Amino acid sequence: MARNASLSGFPEWLPEERLVEQHVLDTLRRTFELHGFSSIETRAVETVGQLLRKGEIDKEVYGLSRLQDDDGNAAAAKDDPNALALHFDLTVPFARYVVENAGYLSFPFRRYQIQKVWRGERPQEGRAREFTQADIDVVADGVLPFRYDVELALVIAEALSALPIPAFKLRINNRKLAEGFYRGIGLTDTAGVLRSIDKLEKIGAERVAELLKNELGATDEQAAKALALASIRTEDTSFVEAVRALGVTDELMEEGLNELEQVIAAAVKSAPGSVVADLSIARGLDYYTGTVYETVLVGHEQLGSICSGGRYDALASKGNRKFPGVGLSIGVTRLVARILSQEFAKASRSVPTAVLVTLADENSWSEAQEVATALRARGISTEVAAKADKFGKQIKYADKRGIPYVWFTDEDGTHQVKDIRSGYQVAADPTTWMPPAEDLVPQITLA
Amino acid sequence: MARNASLSGFPEWLPEERLVEQHVLDTLRRTFELHGFSSIETRAVETVGQLLRKGEIDKEVYGLSRLQDDDGNAAAAKDDPNALALHFDLTVPFARYVVENAGYLSFPFRRYQIQKVWRGERPQEGRAREFTQADIDVVADGVLPFRYDVELALVIAEALSALPIPAFKLRINNRKLAEGFYRGIGLTDTAGVLRSIDKLEKIGAERVAELLKNELGATDEQAAKALALASIRTEDTSFVEAVRALGVTDELMEEGLNELEQVIAAAVKSAPGSVVADLSIARGLDYYTGTVYETVLVGHEQLGSICSGGRYDALASKGNRKFPGVGLSIGVTRLVARILSQEFAKASRSVPTAVLVTLADENSWSEAQEVATALRARGISTEVAAKADKFGKQIKYADKRGIPYVWFTDEDGTHQVKDIRSGYQVAADPTTWMPPAEDLVPQITLA
Repeated sequence: MARNASLSGFPEWLPEERLVEQHVLDTLRRTFELHGFSSIETRAVETVGQLLRKGEIDKEVYGLSRLQDDDGNAAAAKDDPNALALHFDLTVPFARYVVENAGYLSFPFRRYQIQKVWRGERPQEGRAREFTQADIDVVADGVLPFRYDVELALVIAEALSALPIPAFKLRINNRKLAEGFYRGIGLTDTAGVLRSIDKLEKIGAERVAELLKNELGATDEQAAKALALASIRTEDTSFVEAVRALGVTDELMEEGLNELEQVIAAAVKSAPGSVVADLSIARGLDYYTGTVYETVLVGHEQLGSICSGGRYDALASKGNRKFPGVGLSIGVTRLVARILSQEFAKASRSVPTAVLVTLADENSWSEAQEVATALRARGISTEVAAKADKFGKQIKYADKRGIPYVWFTDEDGTHQVKDIRSGYQVAADPTTWMPPAEDLVPQITLA
Repeated sequence: MARNASLSGFPEWLPEERLVEQHVLDTLRRTFELHGFSSIETRAVETVGQLLRKGEIDKEVYGLSRLQDDDGNAAAAKDDPNALALHFDLTVPFARYVVENAGYLSFPFRRYQIQKVWRGERPQEGRAREFTQADIDVVADGVLPFRYDVELALVIAEALSALPIPAFKLRINNRKLAEGFYRGIGLTDTAGVLRSIDKLEKIGAERVAELLKNELGATDEQAAKALALASIRTEDTSFVEAVRALGVTDELMEEGLNELEQVIAAAVKSAPGSVVADLSIARGLDYYTGTVYETVLVGHEQLGSICSGGRYDALASKGNRKFPGVGLSIGVTRLVARILSQEFAKASRSVPTAVLVTLADENSWSEAQEVATALRARGISTEVAAKADKFGKQIKYADKRGIPYVWFTDEDGTHQVKDIRSGYQVAADPTTWMPPAEDLVPQITLA
């Protein structure tokens, strides 16, 4: 189980926990690359002006200042758009990267990006100040076919299905559907309605209705209709009929209905039981313009969304050129912390080492290195004992570290290898012996 | 070639450059794991008190402050040991991690750590403000056998040999040798002498002699002897005789001579031509107590050291418990920047994708997904066209992205795959067809 971080909000893993995290990261990388996503990284640092371009989020940003700088520039950083700060997500830096490098990229540009991000907010269950996100996005130069909204749902469902986590629900909605619907019932501040609906899970339907009426001037009937829309949740495309039954007509709503129907139809086919059309999903960030996604672990809904995103048509632009995109972000640290605390999965051992080559005497170290080199040449992780302690002590060292095999070289140059779990010992040749596949590298096993 | 960073000192790579970096990182990870090193990461943030524990380096540290914090705390951070700052290397955070987690680790603890670090210094050739380091260290609880100093030289020589870089020279020295020697000739401020000798490459022998005489009160003869020691450079263990020929006797010097002889003998055997006993190597950091290592690329010496480290006996402690260690750090960003700017190596293509599945018409997208799924199931990175453009346009898209193969499904359900570089086209089955191994994933090829 994860220990408490020595600095609140900055989790660190023990080596055996890190193996679980590496398994998660390797699995995501493999899935993303199999789908043709290129890896990039952006700098950890953006200018404050870049980060605050979309407003809202300045509360959470860590500004940077050089310690020897006596002018206290940091205090003024908020007002200086050229001051530096740590990025709080990977979408805003990616948009900046695309604009800067547009001449070097071929579009639609498919990228994945796995990096740490930082938020200065108060740490709490499921929220850290430093955490790893794994993002995939597709961005076009000009027009991005809607089909990518469908494709990304499939990729992410495949990626999540490959992780050592419980069942998940990928909840999908479409802002055009919601905005068109609100407009259709006469509520013109559609962003305001979305913000209120976004609070549904937190404060409940009654208080959302009050917000709609008191702050946005909705009538009882309008508030009821907006809440009726948000209550629609189907694991197939039947949400279309449910929306139509509310009797609202609007062109944008129709476009959204059609888009969401396509995403749900394909995703349900590809990941049956894991996909829901959930018309309450709003997503806080202003830049989404169509499909929105979020994901919960079944039975762990209070953890919040472990994978979110959506379509953004206007995040990046360069003069007249627009770079619309669609993407999702997996909260790797949130997921790994839960995997560890709930023991969903664990590593079969805590070290990569499969074999410890023992020393018969102090002069045999160099010879032992040759055995180790022969084993490593065939992909077998090997350590050599540092001292010619009694064999019992060398075996105890291997046991304590969780190394499954110890290697002995006799005076006559013959070799033996012993499985210290079973005690079984056989003659072996360092150029041909292989451990069983499950002992070659640490395995991540599901509980 | 790498473009200029949009923020000076914060390099970012294009996707095809990132493939080279990933190759370097994957190669290092593989080598380190084959030698039984466990992966860990530490938080990017340390307290200022922790970072400045060893003094000296406060000029380079980036302090953190929350932007909404109006008190301007950052200006005072230097004086507040609990203020947060970004780490400037991975050794100091590792020492803190070992002390905090000593009860959970088994010693000698072998770890590798690949992460970004930050330094607020002025950017220049070979120096960035944000860069990736790859560290290996072995740390003991109590006593760390000297043999680990030898082993780490072998591991690092193997790791560097596996990278797409020109020949390198691993220069090794021993502080005990140097300190004992200085003491033996009557220079008692051995740290001061080391600091002066460290400037040899920058300012030359004449000015170092002046420093020794003016600042440390050395006589002409003492200065000459100190410089004579620093001029010794051998690719075998003959340095021992060269030192003895200077006629100095000292116990600590003898210990250092003996240690360095062991390291050089083993390293020369394992990596002939790449290892030098270089008695001018001092390494700036105060915490080294024995072996010190640094590494240059032959013909690129002005780039500075690409891999440095040493033995530190007193970096970490917890009450009476001491955790001596030995380790090295590879400057990954410095290396990758050089590989890219000198075109030592490049990626065979810029995307992971091996196959583009084309669309005959808009209704075939779902069927095309099934072909793609069958290919991916066997590890073939595959994209599906987003639109049923004319085949010529779909092929052009693949060509532009550097995807080597396009896939066609005829109306009768038969499949064809075409190598768009040669134009060669064959009938294929999505459940059995494989591209040649060199096309399966992007290859990093040496220039």
